[in-house]
Amino acid sequence: MELSVTQENFTRALGNVGRVASSKAGLPILSNILLRTDGNRLLIAATNLEIASTHLIGAKIVTPGSITVPARLISDFVSSLPKGQVDLKVKDNHLHITSSSYSSIINGVASDEFPELPTIDESSTIQYSVNTADFKQAVSQTIITSSNDSTRPVLTGVYWHSFEGNLYLAATDGYRLSERRLVETKSDVAAIIPTPTLQEVLRTLSDDTTEVDVLFDETQVRFRVGDSEITSRLIDGNYPDYRQLIPDTSETNITMATSDFVRITKIAGLFARDSGGSVTLTADQEKKTLSIHSIASELGENTSSADAEVSHDGQVTLNSRYLSEALAAIEGDMVSFRFSGKLSPCVLTTKSDDVNYKHIIMPLKS
Amino acid sequence: MELSVTQENFTRALGNVGRVASSKAGLPILSNILLRTDGNRLLIAATNLEIASTHLIGAKIVTPGSITVPARLISDFVSSLPKGQVDLKVKDNHLHITSSSYSSIINGVASDEFPELPTIDESSTIQYSVNTADFKQAVSQTIITSSNDSTRPVLTGVYWHSFEGNLYLAATDGYRLSERRLVETKSDVAAIIPTPTLQEVLRTLSDDTTEVDVLFDETQVRFRVGDSEITSRLIDGNYPDYRQLIPDTSETNITMATSDFVRITKIAGLFARDSGGSVTLTADQEKKTLSIHSIASELGENTSSADAEVSHDGQVTLNSRYLSEALAAIEGDMVSFRFSGKLSPCVLTTKSDDVNYKHIIMPLKS
Repeated sequence: MELSVTQENFTRALGNVGRVASSKAGLPILSNILLRTDGNRLLIAATNLEIASTHLIGAKIVTPGSITVPARLISDFVSSLPKGQVDLKVKDNHLHITSSSYSSIINGVASDEFPELPTIDESSTIQYSVNTADFKQAVSQTIITSSNDSTRPVLTGVYWHSFEGNLYLAATDGYRLSERRLVETKSDVAAIIPTPTLQEVLRTLSDDTTEVDVLFDETQVRFRVGDSEITSRLIDGNYPDYRQLIPDTSETNITMATSDFVRITKIAGLFARDSGGSVTLTADQEKKTLSIHSIASELGENTSSADAEVSHDGQVTLNSRYLSEALAAIEGDMVSFRFSGKLSPCVLTTKSDDVNYKHIIMPLKS
Repeated sequence: MELSVTQENFTRALGNVGRVASSKAGLPILSNILLRTDGNRLLIAATNLEIASTHLIGAKIVTPGSITVPARLISDFVSSLPKGQVDLKVKDNHLHITSSSYSSIINGVASDEFPELPTIDESSTIQYSVNTADFKQAVSQTIITSSNDSTRPVLTGVYWHSFEGNLYLAATDGYRLSERRLVETKSDVAAIIPTPTLQEVLRTLSDDTTEVDVLFDETQVRFRVGDSEITSRLIDGNYPDYRQLIPDTSETNITMATSDFVRITKIAGLFARDSGGSVTLTADQEKKTLSIHSIASELGENTSSADAEVSHDGQVTLNSRYLSEALAAIEGDMVSFRFSGKLSPCVLTTKSDDVNYKHIIMPLKS
């Protein structure tokens, strides 16, 4: 293999792909990055056997070929080089890299020891093109409520599924739940995408990508972002029927400024550290306030309140961290918050928009 | 105690002082902050018995008094409040804090259980007023070469001392050494200030402070920064006679762009991770280059070079991390680097300024 690339393109590709290479996995070769000529381009690839990440960049190819080299060393080295041309040449499993007055030899491993990259038959897949901003928001709003409890694998991902003509994303860890409508669809989809895969896709999005392509086959999903592709296995199993958990209406309906709700939740949470985050919310229709009370038996106690439109008096006890994370996921200056006494699920949405995004929190026993 | 302060002043004071309060120390009271009225001001103070930090802010005092409260809780709480007036009131060792629609009770401990704050007889001290920018630079340039080996306590601080009419700061960990001239002086000073104290003073400097006052008595030093004071014990013992280690002249004298030296050192260091950071520098008078070679037996090897003015050919082996840190401490676009073969100390200075700052690195055996 002998070729030239630009430092800028090579650095970006190594940065994207390198995150997936891991020295933690049992196989040492998985901490390497695969470099392989592909027509008049250079393929840069890494895999941890769950997620494969690839990136193609333009190259001036003299001799085709391939090699694998330690991900961290080559990424750190190339990113430290000055901008401009970088020459790569393989001799006896050594990768010679030169750029102006910098020359290195990196000891590699033959590419036939590298795991095969996953393939998808693109003709038989279901495919979506999603606006990057929508994709980013929808994924960010849902991964936060996915579980990291490996004893219930289906809950460790986000459930992408079609329902009444729309594609929805949903995730729940048993204590809270989020659902987001993404695009219209005519296909039947029901796929659970591992949360780490979605986090990796979010990290790969750059400011200049306008669309993300999402391709499903029976067992895999592929995300295409510009010249990058991330391919992942899906989680096997049936997702619970979460829709029955979302109440259609509630007794106490509250509308208030999102920033006020964020602040009183944060302050109340400071006093709830020793009590597992438990805070009690009281809606007062006459005073037109929502107040939050928390007690730290050792440290003290706090009451914070803010102006709110309140339909009926009510009280409910929640985990303040869950409430903070829910509020951070809500778009818009005004938030709608509704609940029915101390036992029913609470629903948070952007005011007058409970179609696109719903965030549900189960109350704590108080 | 009953008084009012502004959220802005109180937050800044708690932020400065709170860093010194520590729950790690054996005494639980040391994780508290002392609040005490002082004339028409409020004193906020914390100590870890080595360093005491105090801050005075304006207050509307209704009833004088004092209390101590958990540092982290009160800092987090006050910094989360909206700007404006904050009312404090002590009842039975409980601190009631209210601000608009936020009210808290923090359980405190009586102030007579708090350690006495250190005093300095200011009439018998040696005192300097130093421009903040100079202070910041001088301290930053020297603390990096102080030791953290507690078996030689004198090396864990920075040696502030008078020499030929100037006040110098010096620090060495046995492998490298830095010396910086700070101001002229007529007094005799010889004081070893613990590095953590100086780090704390650096963190206390804000953009609007123009001067730092430094006061020495026999066993203590006090730094006054605006309304903040940091008082610390000095390290007991005699500082080694480090001046004899600095060579007056060297065989090989090199001048080059600081940014080039930084880059080739960084790149060489990537390949030196497995060899304890060892890199070999070669100065070539005829080629007018300085090149750095490093070998990672497992991973590969690297040679990086840059243009340089070179007085004589020469070679020396150094720790790349020490070299990087030295270069980061050098001011100016051009750096002067000199050494005499493989055994003598290397000297780095800003080009044509070896008066204010010198950074010395001992070579590695190669």
